[in-house]
Formats: sequence, structure tokens, C-alpha cells
Amino acid sequence: MAVGFHILADLYGVDPQLLKYVRPLKHIFESSISQAGLTKITSHYHQFTPFGVSGTILIEESHVSFHTWPEYELITLDIYTCGDREMAEDAFERLIDALKPKRIETKRIERGVLVEVQEAVVESPSNSERSLGADR
Amino acid sequence: MAVGFHILADLYGVDPQLLKYVRPLKHIFESSISQAGLTKITSHYHQFTPFGVSGTILIEESHVSFHTWPEYELITLDIYTCGDREMAEDAFERLIDALKPKRIETKRIERGVLVEVQEAVVESPSNSERSLGADR
Repeated sequence: MAVGFHILADLYGVDPQLLKYVRPLKHIFESSISQAGLTKITSHYHQFTPFGVSGTILIEESHVSFHTWPEYELITLDIYTCGDREMAEDAFERLIDALKPKRIETKRIERGVLVEVQEAVVESPSNSERSLGADR
Repeated sequence: MAVGFHILADLYGVDPQLLKYVRPLKHIFESSISQAGLTKITSHYHQFTPFGVSGTILIEESHVSFHTWPEYELITLDIYTCGDREMAEDAFERLIDALKPKRIETKRIERGVLVEVQEAVVESPSNSERSLGADR
């Protein structure tokens, strides 16, 4: 069992006009997040000079963050959820639809993997009628 | 060449008293970040009920984020920098020193890898005196 699910994506070949300033990125990220059913707590965006943006969006389900390099037509983004994975994938699809990259590098990583203790079941006549371990 | 360097770490066996509330975590993260030479722009922490904390710290060099599960003695954290990798490693070491986990799972990932165009150098007398490609 993992407590978190983390999508890491680097999007190449994005229209640099979308990546320069806070306003379009704020709209794209916040609408994708809310339309996917995720719940924003707070968000912050930083405008670099002359262009380039970093953003962190704290959500009830964990966080979303991104950083842009308009000069390379590049944005890297992270979606981390401790909730429903489908919602994270939905938000990711909406971001892709809005940003329209030519190429995507994606990793999906389970975070905080908890080891479950499994009891061994020894097959022998003496314990054949006993119920050992968790149900499967 | 990669524009970003990302440390993902899941820390197990951390004292749950450290992981329940904002105050000690804010102190640990903000002091580790500043002592490592990274520059905070803004930070936000969310207190879950009855306990558990999420935090995002936007830094000039990109971001730091974390989520805690005191009931599992677990914190997962991310340090993402587009700057000096040594500073990111320094901040990470300081966080480990403060949180004292019994076990750590760490991944280090390059983000936004730019493909460099390399010119082929054909060995032949006709081009032996020409300088091709970038300096190494």
C-alpha cells in the first residue's frame, strides 16, 4: 500500500507565449485542478524576470507544482495526491490538453510505500481447518 | 543538460510528535532551506485534523514540498532545484539530521533534459584541421 501517487511530467515543445507569465498558467492550472475534482487550499505563483513562472498549488489531496522555461518551450510539472488516482490523471490530461506539448516525458511513482505484514500459511493437516492470515 | 534536479525522499520511522503539527515542521524546513543557502519566496502549511501537515515552500531555485502521516511515522518530501545541486543535497542532509528517520527511500531525477545537438566529426585528412562542434 502506498499513501501517495506522484505524476512527474516534463512537457517539451509548448508555445512559449503560454509559459512566460503568471496569468495564463494560473488559469490553466486552477481550472484543470477544479475540473478534475481536486480541492485547492491555496496557491502561489512567482514571476521571473524577464519571463518564466514557478507555481505551487496546495490542494486537500496534496499538491501540484510547476516551473517553466519559455526559452526552451519547456514546462515541468508535478501532481502529487494522497487521494483518488483517477482525479490526478484527469487533472494531468486537462493540463496536457491546455498546454499542447509536442513531447512528454512522464514518470508515475508511488510514494510512502507501507509494507504489509503477511502471515505465512503452512500447509499441514494440523492447521488445515484454521484460518490464518488475512482474507485474499 | 537538465534544467532541474529533483530529490524525492520517503522517510520512515520518524518520531510522530514531529509530524503532527505545523510549528516544528515549519521550523525544520525553513531553517534547513536557509542554512543550505536556498532563498525562500513564500511558504504555506496546511494543518489536517486531527493531525498531519502538508507544506509547499516556493524558493527562488524552484520548490520544496512535504506531506506527513504521523500514524505511519512517515513523511514524504521533495526538493526541486534549477540551481546548485549541492545546495539541494545540503538542505536534504539537514532535513535528515532533524527528522532522524529509521529508513529512507530516495530517488534523484533530472528534470527537463535538453537534447544537445552534437555534430559528427568524421576523421579524414580533409577535416583534420577544422574545429567541429562545441568545445569539450
